[in-house]
Amino acid sequence: MVSIASEHAPEAVPALSVPVLAVIGVGLIGGSLALSLKRNGVVGKVLGISHDPASINKALELGIIDTVASFEQISQADVIVIATPVSAFETVCDTIKPFLAPHALITDVCSTKKQVIAMARRSLGERVAQFVPGHPIAGAETSGPQAANAFLFEQKQVILAPLQENTPEQIHLLTRLWEACGSTVSPMDAAEHDRIFAAVSHMPHFLSALYMYSLLGADQTDRKFKYAGSGFRDFTRIAAGPPIMWRDIFSSNRDCMLEEITRFQTCLERARHMLESGDNDAFEAWLAAAAQARRDWENPPL
Amino acid sequence: MVSIASEHAPEAVPALSVPVLAVIGVGLIGGSLALSLKRNGVVGKVLGISHDPASINKALELGIIDTVASFEQISQADVIVIATPVSAFETVCDTIKPFLAPHALITDVCSTKKQVIAMARRSLGERVAQFVPGHPIAGAETSGPQAANAFLFEQKQVILAPLQENTPEQIHLLTRLWEACGSTVSPMDAAEHDRIFAAVSHMPHFLSALYMYSLLGADQTDRKFKYAGSGFRDFTRIAAGPPIMWRDIFSSNRDCMLEEITRFQTCLERARHMLESGDNDAFEAWLAAAAQARRDWENPPL
Repeated sequence: MVSIASEHAPEAVPALSVPVLAVIGVGLIGGSLALSLKRNGVVGKVLGISHDPASINKALELGIIDTVASFEQISQADVIVIATPVSAFETVCDTIKPFLAPHALITDVCSTKKQVIAMARRSLGERVAQFVPGHPIAGAETSGPQAANAFLFEQKQVILAPLQENTPEQIHLLTRLWEACGSTVSPMDAAEHDRIFAAVSHMPHFLSALYMYSLLGADQTDRKFKYAGSGFRDFTRIAAGPPIMWRDIFSSNRDCMLEEITRFQTCLERARHMLESGDNDAFEAWLAAAAQARRDWENPPL
Repeated sequence: MVSIASEHAPEAVPALSVPVLAVIGVGLIGGSLALSLKRNGVVGKVLGISHDPASINKALELGIIDTVASFEQISQADVIVIATPVSAFETVCDTIKPFLAPHALITDVCSTKKQVIAMARRSLGERVAQFVPGHPIAGAETSGPQAANAFLFEQKQVILAPLQENTPEQIHLLTRLWEACGSTVSPMDAAEHDRIFAAVSHMPHFLSALYMYSLLGADQTDRKFKYAGSGFRDFTRIAAGPPIMWRDIFSSNRDCMLEEITRFQTCLERARHMLESGDNDAFEAWLAAAAQARRDWENPPL
């Protein structure tokens, strides 16, 4: 049972203790969360579950998890983190449902929220009240348990998209867990979450990957790559991310993605026309607006 | 007069000495080149010319240049580096032509080569033989003399696109100068240069800036920016680059850019269709191909 010790003095921070954490999917995100919570002394034992024997053995070897568990052993878990690609989420819910302890808190780390919540409702039924949806804004182009690190979530943002069925205590517990990892936690409506992250996270990945792909269909790709510099390096870093995870993110956030893609296509067509027609003033104006916006993002004006 | 001391022994590296270097445009690239050559003891005196009094005074204050020069003083220069945006290049050539010492070597640092060479031919006439086109593959999203640093070109590539009128001695001298900055120098045909850099340098900038611009036209931009993470940060870093410089690069490489944009638009339309039609296998296949290409670029397979 999870305990948050009662306060002895107004200043005292109650200790946070999760006796048993289960992590389903022990890749970059699930693995890093387990490592961070262990490092901060928040969890007693970490159970690990994965469909991939190589991953789960690696996670055990690296000390990310303490035990390789079966789905039946989910019954021991106080907190369950589903850290699989979106496409596996509903099957995982179906599988764990019979074994859930009544007090167990379930959360996820998926990059989209509306579809994940719909799947959780469909699968968990009334036990969906045990599920508090979450999304840490942290990642890397690497993946797998070998990429996990205990500091991934430090000074990062975590979005929670609580259900109306969730209790304040559940939300408080999950907030405390992420705060223990060094993150700042904000609540957000699921639909707004998906719109915002389509714009600032999913589209950059989509465009970066698409740009890489467009080069592959052209001539002399290897020769071109030889001359790519630091701009290319940074612009395409995210394109190396795990394909299945990103396929799932795009398809589970399809409507928002299509809206963003449409807006981008319109801008692209306009910029193309400026270039074709030699409208240098208009061209400079949009480049200047983009540059200013990027500078303001990094160093907000006072 | 530039001297490369004759060799005394087969192993000896002849000393490289440029008594007077003139840098026209004392921004990130011109300033860094001057600093690097000074630091490595290659140049005697550095003359600086800029249309912008603030920049030239800053360059003097920072020790990037030794003297603020007039165009007439170009007559003293052994090597002249034109480091302005492409749109100023031809005017600079027109202006310096009457003052060029017969032995002076002129080079540039522009990111496109075909149009620059055409402008040089038109402006310099038979004295175009003194011009050896160059392009260092180095940069930053910062600009101006305050962004200059002596190490910018270390372990970077520099492309030379020599003219048929250039002598081996000229090409050798310019190669030695860039090598003194720590760069690796390769010759390349100007047309091939422009095709390659449209693909691996100009398109990433174009797409990054266009993506930033597309966000500005949408709702709740500030709120969205608040949740942008490290993927967004790296993907958009180059969008902060100097707008006039990039406008000039795109317009002076228009034909190659339009070809790249067309290819990208075709890929974008296809990916959009895969997303709309729910063709997850095809979607995953292109994401996987893009991810593999990016990983292979960073860590080439043996």
